[in-house]
Amino acid sequence: MIGEEKIRRLAVKNSAKILLIVLDGVGDIPSAGGGTALEEASTPNLDALAGESQLGLTVPVDIGITPGSGPAHVSLFGYDPLKHEIGRGVLEALGVGVELTPEDLAARANFATRDENGVITDRRAGRIPTKENERLCAMINGSMGDIGDVRVKVYPGKEHRFVVVFSGPGLSDSLYDADPQETGKKEKFVESSDPASEKARDTANEFIKRLQEILKDEAPANTCLLRGIAKSPDILKMQELYGLTPCAIATYPMYKGLARLVGMDIAEGVSTVEEEIRELSKRFSEYDFFYMHVKKTDSYGEDGNLESKIKEIEEFDRLLPRILELNPEVLCITSDHSTPAVMKSHSWHPNPILIKGPHMRRQEASGFSENSCLKGVLGSFYAKDVMQLLMSHAGKLSKYGA
Amino acid sequence: MIGEEKIRRLAVKNSAKILLIVLDGVGDIPSAGGGTALEEASTPNLDALAGESQLGLTVPVDIGITPGSGPAHVSLFGYDPLKHEIGRGVLEALGVGVELTPEDLAARANFATRDENGVITDRRAGRIPTKENERLCAMINGSMGDIGDVRVKVYPGKEHRFVVVFSGPGLSDSLYDADPQETGKKEKFVESSDPASEKARDTANEFIKRLQEILKDEAPANTCLLRGIAKSPDILKMQELYGLTPCAIATYPMYKGLARLVGMDIAEGVSTVEEEIRELSKRFSEYDFFYMHVKKTDSYGEDGNLESKIKEIEEFDRLLPRILELNPEVLCITSDHSTPAVMKSHSWHPNPILIKGPHMRRQEASGFSENSCLKGVLGSFYAKDVMQLLMSHAGKLSKYGA
Repeated sequence: MIGEEKIRRLAVKNSAKILLIVLDGVGDIPSAGGGTALEEASTPNLDALAGESQLGLTVPVDIGITPGSGPAHVSLFGYDPLKHEIGRGVLEALGVGVELTPEDLAARANFATRDENGVITDRRAGRIPTKENERLCAMINGSMGDIGDVRVKVYPGKEHRFVVVFSGPGLSDSLYDADPQETGKKEKFVESSDPASEKARDTANEFIKRLQEILKDEAPANTCLLRGIAKSPDILKMQELYGLTPCAIATYPMYKGLARLVGMDIAEGVSTVEEEIRELSKRFSEYDFFYMHVKKTDSYGEDGNLESKIKEIEEFDRLLPRILELNPEVLCITSDHSTPAVMKSHSWHPNPILIKGPHMRRQEASGFSENSCLKGVLGSFYAKDVMQLLMSHAGKLSKYGA
Repeated sequence: MIGEEKIRRLAVKNSAKILLIVLDGVGDIPSAGGGTALEEASTPNLDALAGESQLGLTVPVDIGITPGSGPAHVSLFGYDPLKHEIGRGVLEALGVGVELTPEDLAARANFATRDENGVITDRRAGRIPTKENERLCAMINGSMGDIGDVRVKVYPGKEHRFVVVFSGPGLSDSLYDADPQETGKKEKFVESSDPASEKARDTANEFIKRLQEILKDEAPANTCLLRGIAKSPDILKMQELYGLTPCAIATYPMYKGLARLVGMDIAEGVSTVEEEIRELSKRFSEYDFFYMHVKKTDSYGEDGNLESKIKEIEEFDRLLPRILELNPEVLCITSDHSTPAVMKSHSWHPNPILIKGPHMRRQEASGFSENSCLKGVLGSFYAKDVMQLLMSHAGKLSKYGA
């Protein structure tokens, strides 16, 4: 990528629409005796589309590096993932709809249980029901009070998960998690790795102690674990960087949070791919950039469930014609990272990518799979450069230099 | 690229000759129902050469970025085009043969016309004849005088175009053009975006006012527009960076200017490809690096004239044996950027590249086209790295590290 200052200089507005569809974790490696999910799935619509598109492979963050969802998406949105690190706490906070300011520090928290000796007996407090979580969060917000000049607020998530936001001056985030990682171990408190983060450390630890006091008569949750404590990254919005009016259509909080971070408007209340497409159609005239996220290809990969991953791809393929009807000037279908079912985890393998738009070179390989993409006319490149390509195909980037 | 300090350390001199031929804008995309210019052209000599060379694709500046001629050439000459930005004024000045010093500020200027209210009535002063341009420039040089401690000189170009060079201490170039961009709009003066550039701003605006005074009784040109006002980049010569003795053979001023910028000797008085080859032969024993520029493949691309672009390629192919007779140790044929005839403009698509020299891997694709190059043994890489490859094939780069 040519850098934010230069991109801003070259970006021009026009009416062309860019649609970026992320099939989360769809990239795969072959299972024993079989193919990858994309190879095994029957995808007549994707295959036909691939025949009139350009194919390639993208490296999500760097060669051989397995990315989390944060950096993998940051790259696809056209930002350098090595420059813009996004703490897990920040992602969670954005996911529950909190708008963070540069003063804020966010942590991902679990309700948990401890015994009288401070040994963690359940890191998830028996996965308490979300309703119970909401009740506990209300109690905490009612009784916590400020910690010095720092305001504290907690936000319930699902089951045992919640988010803490610390708001005040002088909070830095060189911090280690307050989480022993295993049940049966002694509880941990936050530690800091530089003097500038000591105030944040002390504030977080005071929060844990007050929370233990507030919940002392509660069961099963009588403490919490704090993880991924981080400040919101100072990141330029897509509006400023690319001159786009962007909209995100996603079902899971974290992806909405990632999109909100770079300035996207968020479609709320959407929970299936069909609903996502309906929302996309409804909003299609209002924006010039759409990010649509399909979650379950990743979830089934994480579960090691190749069969369901294949079915999810086939379901997307069945719905694809409804997307094509919208006729965006530039369409991109890719994954943020690979989630091979045989690995049951994210991996470093490059993402298959398909781009259809004006001004294409001839694509000779066909079908949409890891191996057809390897032979693709786009070659292999870094995911952080995808936006430059989409912008140029859409006529939204002027010439660099004379 | 490994960086200038390391390249200087590794560069060694020997007698091997490198010939870099730039078929400007030759890279293409397929026309409707047809192929690219390289595919459509009948090029028996290029095809035979491709069969005994290595092929690949280069990204001129970055994925999806359309480069101007400046950055596209800077890359090919082995410099980072994102680090060395070259203002349009500088290119124009170099093109008319001005040797710029680090104190100089150069602007690309148009003779134009304004009415008594300062509204621009013709941005090109009716494309006045070059002779007339020369007369006006002589008048201006005769009457302008110094502006404070800044000397000013103008140089006629073709038709309405000329170059202004401001020479003096303390001139910085964070400046905006003095050009309303459209006729019928009020004239503009130069503005600066930082305090360090205020002296340059004031000097440029005083120049415009004095010029208006000098030309007040002239028609059709009674004012000027100033664009691309810039200082000469502080760039290491190829002699220092690569230890080469370089020579440029080009027909158009801008390309000679670019070559002069990196220290090349310039062959003057050459206006056709045949003359370029004659000049190349004549100078072949004197230098160890030659850059030969073929302009018209780009010009016809810009015109959307695929047929003439094809003919220009065929004409080059016909002359190619005379070049091959010279038997340079390393021969490279490529474009600086693509200029697809169907787009009538530069584009971001990678450049086909052919390199013949000692120590090649086996090339399995054949013919010289965008798609044979996609399958080439060199793969896809950044144009700024081409020089490293040419230097190594020529035995002019020693090992990095022990």
